[in-house]
Amino acid sequence: MGLGGVRVTRPLEFWFEFASTYSYLSAARIEQACAARGVPLVWKPFLLGPIFAAQGMTDSPFNLYPAKGAYMWRDMDREAARLGLPFQRPDRFPQNGLRAARVATAHLDAPWLGDFVRGVYHAAFAENRDISDPATLSAILIARHADPDAALARAEEPQVKAQLKGTTAAAQEAGVFGAPSFIVAGTLFWGNDRLDRALDQATA
Amino acid sequence: MGLGGVRVTRPLEFWFEFASTYSYLSAARIEQACAARGVPLVWKPFLLGPIFAAQGMTDSPFNLYPAKGAYMWRDMDREAARLGLPFQRPDRFPQNGLRAARVATAHLDAPWLGDFVRGVYHAAFAENRDISDPATLSAILIARHADPDAALARAEEPQVKAQLKGTTAAAQEAGVFGAPSFIVAGTLFWGNDRLDRALDQATA
Repeated sequence: MGLGGVRVTRPLEFWFEFASTYSYLSAARIEQACAARGVPLVWKPFLLGPIFAAQGMTDSPFNLYPAKGAYMWRDMDREAARLGLPFQRPDRFPQNGLRAARVATAHLDAPWLGDFVRGVYHAAFAENRDISDPATLSAILIARHADPDAALARAEEPQVKAQLKGTTAAAQEAGVFGAPSFIVAGTLFWGNDRLDRALDQATA
Repeated sequence: MGLGGVRVTRPLEFWFEFASTYSYLSAARIEQACAARGVPLVWKPFLLGPIFAAQGMTDSPFNLYPAKGAYMWRDMDREAARLGLPFQRPDRFPQNGLRAARVATAHLDAPWLGDFVRGVYHAAFAENRDISDPATLSAILIARHADPDAALARAEEPQVKAQLKGTTAAAQEAGVFGAPSFIVAGTLFWGNDRLDRALDQATA
């Protein structure tokens, strides 16, 4: 609580990668959860590939460590069901989320951004669609009443590519090592299981 | 619910390694949590070293991946505080839990087992004591009114060593890749964050 009993809320940064399974579980509910508690939400699309590479991993840990991967798919089934979310294990994992991350990066202030993010995750983890395919992203954009050609073209502009690289470097600088991650006033929380803790921190 | 409205409970296996930070958070409360819900608890001390080695890791992932390790210590601070548990980052990590695991393995049916397990974790993660030191284990055993010399001697018997190896092999066979893990009727749950889910499964 701040002075005079006015509750102080701090922004919650949501660091997400479109290839990340557990990020789907957070992305599906984070906008509503933040709104319900009056917490400003800051979308932080970034790429896990360079973060994993910096740790010496050339693939998802869920592929590098098969026992961990096998567990993750069973756990995702259960956790998605708990949250009432559709889930289908995709044929390919991880998918390439670069194009979708660039679209998000180029449109952080668009009114359709949250709906787009949820649409991409739904395509990836509920519909087994290829989210690296411009046609998939176009369909998602059209459904959100966005201009797909303009959005996809803007996503490929040099300053957008540079911005996404910068966000990924900032993630690493902030100690992010996986996704989803949440940062509130410099405090890092990792994993869908920590979303509620991050919300608590934002309203503490 | 079983026939006639009688609730069916299934045993909950608690797979733990004394060097594991998050296992401390589960060990501290699992006996009471199981008792409160009428769930039979099966203690499964095992060794993570061979499990990690089989995955190609020669050290704790928290040491191999420093960003992940730095986060874990901050998260442990917060999670221990949430659970009302004392916590102090030990000087050395991971500790060697072999001797303590052998003591537990040799005394799975002792009335003091749960209290011993909690004592070892408390020594490791609240008191910064060396749990590989027989003097540390003796003090814990004495406080539980157990005969330390007899218990430590029994722990070094060949069949106890073989039994611990067998439990570790069984963990790997069951898909265990980290600690703490919980298994209920063949269903694996990983991590302190999943203890409640495992309890739900045991009473479903």
